[in-house]
Amino acid sequence: MNNIINGTEIAKIIKDEIKKNIEDLQGKKPCLAVVIVGDDYASHVYVKNKNKACEYVGIKSDTYFLDTNITEQDLLTLIEKLNNDDNVNGILVQLPLPNHINEKNILLKINPLKDVDGFHPYNIGMLSTNNSMLKSCTPAGCIELLKRYNVDIKGKNALVIGRSNIVGKPLSMMLLNEDATVTTAHTKTKNLEYLTKQADIIIVAIGVANFLKPHMIKEGAILIDVGMNRDNDKLCGDIDFSCSQKASLITPVPGGVGPMTITMLMKNCLIAYKIQNNMNV
Amino acid sequence: MNNIINGTEIAKIIKDEIKKNIEDLQGKKPCLAVVIVGDDYASHVYVKNKNKACEYVGIKSDTYFLDTNITEQDLLTLIEKLNNDDNVNGILVQLPLPNHINEKNILLKINPLKDVDGFHPYNIGMLSTNNSMLKSCTPAGCIELLKRYNVDIKGKNALVIGRSNIVGKPLSMMLLNEDATVTTAHTKTKNLEYLTKQADIIIVAIGVANFLKPHMIKEGAILIDVGMNRDNDKLCGDIDFSCSQKASLITPVPGGVGPMTITMLMKNCLIAYKIQNNMNV
Repeated sequence: MNNIINGTEIAKIIKDEIKKNIEDLQGKKPCLAVVIVGDDYASHVYVKNKNKACEYVGIKSDTYFLDTNITEQDLLTLIEKLNNDDNVNGILVQLPLPNHINEKNILLKINPLKDVDGFHPYNIGMLSTNNSMLKSCTPAGCIELLKRYNVDIKGKNALVIGRSNIVGKPLSMMLLNEDATVTTAHTKTKNLEYLTKQADIIIVAIGVANFLKPHMIKEGAILIDVGMNRDNDKLCGDIDFSCSQKASLITPVPGGVGPMTITMLMKNCLIAYKIQNNMNV
Repeated sequence: MNNIINGTEIAKIIKDEIKKNIEDLQGKKPCLAVVIVGDDYASHVYVKNKNKACEYVGIKSDTYFLDTNITEQDLLTLIEKLNNDDNVNGILVQLPLPNHINEKNILLKINPLKDVDGFHPYNIGMLSTNNSMLKSCTPAGCIELLKRYNVDIKGKNALVIGRSNIVGKPLSMMLLNEDATVTTAHTKTKNLEYLTKQADIIIVAIGVANFLKPHMIKEGAILIDVGMNRDNDKLCGDIDFSCSQKASLITPVPGGVGPMTITMLMKNCLIAYKIQNNMNV
């Protein structure tokens, strides 16, 4: 049995769905504004990949390369301009920002209806009350993988390891919205192995290479790996891949959750476009 | 050993702290606007109790009694007026509203900085990212009770039974912010008794009389009861009070969480006043 979730394949299927959907807009194109400050190498790679995905699905992408010395006020002014520009449907500020800029102030400034990263407190609150339109991309990608592999989440014991604002916490809320019984564990958790052994679904997002080991899980568990680490120069996740011997489903790294993040960003751009044009989402 | 949490006493202590704090404002008073539509009996009792608490701590209270036939637009217009009135620090719309009014539209209209109920998605999002100023009153009251009884929440296994937007979900987030390992259970949970037996702290908010029984808990558990039900005309909570034989701490009903809700509302009014006047909170 092939129990390895093919994130690359699912991402391609969803991107093709989005592409088809955008073609149906009859010449109109959603537009994503990407703001990148300074010359962090990884950020530039991410932005290049985002632009490539935009091109594939038919989203117009405007990238603003800003000098690392830009003031917070000038950056806020740019966001205000993008907020007010009817031709811009999504705004994404690439993190991290230089230290002299308060990230929180910047993210709060983005119009929640254009917040395609789903990081604005308004969108997080809407997610919590299960009214969300724009969901954080990585957690939304995890849920989408489960659904595309026909995992019945309802009533399952789901364990989320990690409680970051951009992955662990929104994931816990999304799983709760899908009717899972959700436990959120973290560095202060005292009996983690006890919890991992009970869980039907485990999602790990802590950034520790090969953290979850086969002896910690039960036979048939479903494992989603959000980690992306380097172990002796080899890419690996937070889950020791030998867990695949016991798991009923597992995401590999790379090729699991990774390709889903940008794909869900594309989906959010389309959703934002539709909301702003009073179309059914 | 007296293991019964005295919510009435704690509420009185906190109200006196708020009162002292307001006296220190040297003649200035926070102002709470309460909006009540129609003549629901319970709502009128609540509003009367709120007004009494306001008077006690020194908060000015303006109550708007509106006809049950008011249009949604007229109610939105009133909220807009209160949003823009610098003399109003907190706005509370008493729920439920008549069926012809969309509750969500009304709650979204309230300026988040004046949202003393903590129900606006913005405030829920801020809570999720642990940046909250205005927290939902009932869950905040539960946490406050634990703290005033010197419960060390960090690393504890906390189980929240119930996932309502106004109690269960924000409570889960608050407990996570306090470093508990948090499990949220609900009607779709399959193995509840298994979970209750493991939990160090159990908070029940489901509205089912005497639901949690002694055989379901472990010796020494800490039990917080958000329920308020009638059982043969007698007030009771969601926790069978005979659990007090096994629990290390337990809230009674009445006199446990109940008195904390309005108290935390008073606290939110003071916090809202301070935010709006650029004072340290």
